[in-house]
Amino acid sequence: MTHKPGIVITGASGRMGQMLIKTVLDSDKATLVGAVERGGHDWVGRDVGEAMGGVPLGVTVTDDALEAFSKAQAVIDFTAPEATLEFAALAAQARAVHVIGTTGMTDEQIAQLAPAARHAVIVRAGNMSLGVNLLVQLTKKVAAALDEDFDIEVIEAHHHHKVDAPSGTALMLGEAAAEGRGVKLADVSDRGRDGITGARKRGDIGFTAIRGGDIVGEHDVLFAGAGERIVLRHMATDRALFARGALKAALWGQDKSPGEYDMIDVLGL
Amino acid sequence: MTHKPGIVITGASGRMGQMLIKTVLDSDKATLVGAVERGGHDWVGRDVGEAMGGVPLGVTVTDDALEAFSKAQAVIDFTAPEATLEFAALAAQARAVHVIGTTGMTDEQIAQLAPAARHAVIVRAGNMSLGVNLLVQLTKKVAAALDEDFDIEVIEAHHHHKVDAPSGTALMLGEAAAEGRGVKLADVSDRGRDGITGARKRGDIGFTAIRGGDIVGEHDVLFAGAGERIVLRHMATDRALFARGALKAALWGQDKSPGEYDMIDVLGL
Amino acid sequence: MTHKPGIVITGASGRMGQMLIKTVLDSDKATLVGAVERGGHDWVGRDVGEAMGGVPLGVTVTDDALEAFSKAQAVIDFTAPEATLEFAALAAQARAVHVIGTTGMTDEQIAQLAPAARHAVIVRAGNMSLGVNLLVQLTKKVAAALDEDFDIEVIEAHHHHKVDAPSGTALMLGEAAAEGRGVKLADVSDRGRDGITGARKRGDIGFTAIRGGDIVGEHDVLFAGAGERIVLRHMATDRALFARGALKAALWGQDKSPGEYDMIDVLGL
Amino acid sequence: MTHKPGIVITGASGRMGQMLIKTVLDSDKATLVGAVERGGHDWVGRDVGEAMGGVPLGVTVTDDALEAFSKAQAVIDFTAPEATLEFAALAAQARAVHVIGTTGMTDEQIAQLAPAARHAVIVRAGNMSLGVNLLVQLTKKVAAALDEDFDIEVIEAHHHHKVDAPSGTALMLGEAAAEGRGVKLADVSDRGRDGITGARKRGDIGFTAIRGGDIVGEHDVLFAGAGERIVLRHMATDRALFARGALKAALWGQDKSPGEYDMIDVLGL
Repeated sequence: MTHKPGIVITGASGRMGQMLIKTVLDSDKATLVGAVERGGHDWVGRDVGEAMGGVPLGVTVTDDALEAFSKAQAVIDFTAPEATLEFAALAAQARAVHVIGTTGMTDEQIAQLAPAARHAVIVRAGNMSLGVNLLVQLTKKVAAALDEDFDIEVIEAHHHHKVDAPSGTALMLGEAAAEGRGVKLADVSDRGRDGITGARKRGDIGFTAIRGGDIVGEHDVLFAGAGERIVLRHMATDRALFARGALKAALWGQDKSPGEYDMIDVLGL
Repeated sequence: MTHKPGIVITGASGRMGQMLIKTVLDSDKATLVGAVERGGHDWVGRDVGEAMGGVPLGVTVTDDALEAFSKAQAVIDFTAPEATLEFAALAAQARAVHVIGTTGMTDEQIAQLAPAARHAVIVRAGNMSLGVNLLVQLTKKVAAALDEDFDIEVIEAHHHHKVDAPSGTALMLGEAAAEGRGVKLADVSDRGRDGITGARKRGDIGFTAIRGGDIVGEHDVLFAGAGERIVLRHMATDRALFARGALKAALWGQDKSPGEYDMIDVLGL
Repeated sequence: MTHKPGIVITGASGRMGQMLIKTVLDSDKATLVGAVERGGHDWVGRDVGEAMGGVPLGVTVTDDALEAFSKAQAVIDFTAPEATLEFAALAAQARAVHVIGTTGMTDEQIAQLAPAARHAVIVRAGNMSLGVNLLVQLTKKVAAALDEDFDIEVIEAHHHHKVDAPSGTALMLGEAAAEGRGVKLADVSDRGRDGITGARKRGDIGFTAIRGGDIVGEHDVLFAGAGERIVLRHMATDRALFARGALKAALWGQDKSPGEYDMIDVLGL
Repeated sequence: MTHKPGIVITGASGRMGQMLIKTVLDSDKATLVGAVERGGHDWVGRDVGEAMGGVPLGVTVTDDALEAFSKAQAVIDFTAPEATLEFAALAAQARAVHVIGTTGMTDEQIAQLAPAARHAVIVRAGNMSLGVNLLVQLTKKVAAALDEDFDIEVIEAHHHHKVDAPSGTALMLGEAAAEGRGVKLADVSDRGRDGITGARKRGDIGFTAIRGGDIVGEHDVLFAGAGERIVLRHMATDRALFARGALKAALWGQDKSPGEYDMIDVLGL
């Protein structure tokens, strides 16, 4: 008999929560065993399949996270920083792998994950896409190999609902480029170019943000030299990508020792 | 015997002047008959080929524009607004076609070309590239055909010496898009996106500027809708392009009636 | 009271049929009033929402197309040529707009639509995407404006399941380019470039096909000249695009006189 | 006093030879000290600057390679295999760095360079562009990191004079991808896609060749997975690029021990 790890999804009613549920259901390597929402949410107590407007799935949405986690091998969590800290403690208690896709955590909040990581596997990443994590690695290498004769620009495009610019992933790429060059991004970052800017400063890392339609997420890292250019490009065309990356991390973590990991570890880069 | 129109280049010692001279020399449809510089410039009185660091061409640089123009069928002029106004009067007197690539002319200065245009052909354009002028036309048509479900973004890339953003051509494309939609660009222009911007406003026309290396000039007009995108792209890879466009305009103007024309007329669009 | 046209979907159980149903349900400008399958199909008699694995929609799948059509203002039909000819007669009888996305119809079969088109509106297109139809128009215009100094290449990319190359849409674009130039595509088509090909022949129209992943469909028409290039690009990122185009055609057709139309008419290009 | 290495260019009258000469003249890190042509060529005995149609440079074209090499610190050589073998022996005798950009050498001819490499530095590469060599390294790494869920395609574009497809650089990239995956390129290469091809075979590496205008050379390596893509792109926009890479290799070799090197060594990748 093949054992399929049981997965719990937190924030079940949200857009990402529902996509995670569908991704687990579509996979033949994992089983959905729980769905968590906060107390008072009208999905609590309902079958999660029916709540999503489909057929019953035999999984009831609960606000008792610990009970749900204790029946699971992994928790996938794209919620908010405060909730994620609570879930980390409970997942550690249940010895379940905790995959964290939550964004906006402060350094202090991240430090608070340490106790949980002594008892269970935590995989945390700002972007769960395999390709993006690979691109970050490549960006660092190329920035280290080419000198300042090559101007670096990070160009990203997203859908028109996005409220901030540049994207978190663009900044992650900029950080990788700066690290490759041995400089601090804050010292060389050139954003929001407009008007009489003067000539581009040698060594700067520029950022531009394109917004339109339903573009899922595209990132270019351009190295522009004399007579030649290198571009490292990632295109995400399906939001399920991030859910699939999270599920991959949940499965990868099953036989690992407690500790904090990221997608670079999952990818084995 | 085939007649090849004789061409005079103004501002002969400048970077664009020298490129225009080379373009005329490389062409089998035109002959270089004159090279003009302002009085006191050290090229005046020298052979223009030698002044450019090459072999003699039998054409002496002069500061007497009228004398040079009177032996020519066309004048190609990428100088400065004040000089261009004087050259327009002299070219009209000589009945030579006046091709104007000079940028930065005010509406008032443009109006002052009218008397000259009653006696001779004037072709004036902000960008002499065939492709860019075609792109402007296409942008207007597509913007008119698609409604605001399609978000419009103008994305340009130029070399790291460029001191302003967005480029004049990007603004020209934005104007064309706004005209196609029947709105004023100033009312919908979205530039320098950075930080917490909020969601993109429906109907806006966005601009982004990439700077790096020796990129000659690239312009994308993106129409991003739900599930699909159209991109109209122009890439210039050789600055000689603008010189070739100017020469094409000079030849085109040979059999036209006096008046003011632009590259749209030359292209027959 | 706002009137929303009632729509019937044929071939309801198919992948495209289900996507059309979802598109109508998601729209606030139309109502789903019928779903048709062939006699004997196990969906007949069932609620279409339940048959799709979701909640009931109050629309029962039927094999009586005429009855379904008589309650509708439009029929959207992506089935097969023989079925489409029958549906055309029935839609005409019901005075419903008939939107045809069916591919593979012969010229003879297309001719057989004429009697139906005397009584009702028919909108038929090989590709229902607004953007692709616009790209076809632009390609023709640009090919007419630029001479053979510009080499034309049609480059397409599709998912790895696609069994033919180049795509039907790429060929449609090639035809448009040839028409713009006043030549026959068969005389200038250059496909499957490999090995010692010799220099590119002036005037040729080249085709290349990229295959990989789950790319929905991307088409570039490249006009490559000396020192400059124009690219007209279309990217489809969501198959629902074709369903949305069909629904737009159904709505557009509501107040038109009987006759045969295509997406160019719908777009008002 | 700063010491600038003296450079000799072989094949001085050819298109690449002249570009190499200009590149050395434009550099402030090297000096032109010799120009070699074969015996009987009408440039022999003339000043190389005048022969190129410009002003005298004080360097006379010679057919005595050994004499020229003995006054130099490096020889840059983009000629033909037979000539390159002779030049290798003479450069070794003169203890000058020999940079070889000559293409079409057989494995046997390459083996014949070994004796020379015992006495002097030889840097040899199929493509002297820094960026292309970097792209080859990246391609190998990414192909090793991603499994066959990602389809690999190598897409290249070149000017309309090019007589073969795919380009040598595209094949070099394909080899790197195959090596990264641990397969032989010959077993998985998919070229000249056209007609009814069937679905793409898992594990294949596809090649497509775009031809048009004066495109210097562009290469994309596409990794297309489910919902995401990575593209590694190189664009060459100026042929001088290859000359600059060769000069960089000549300078790099000045303090190296005798032996055979390639551009990967020069880049320090």
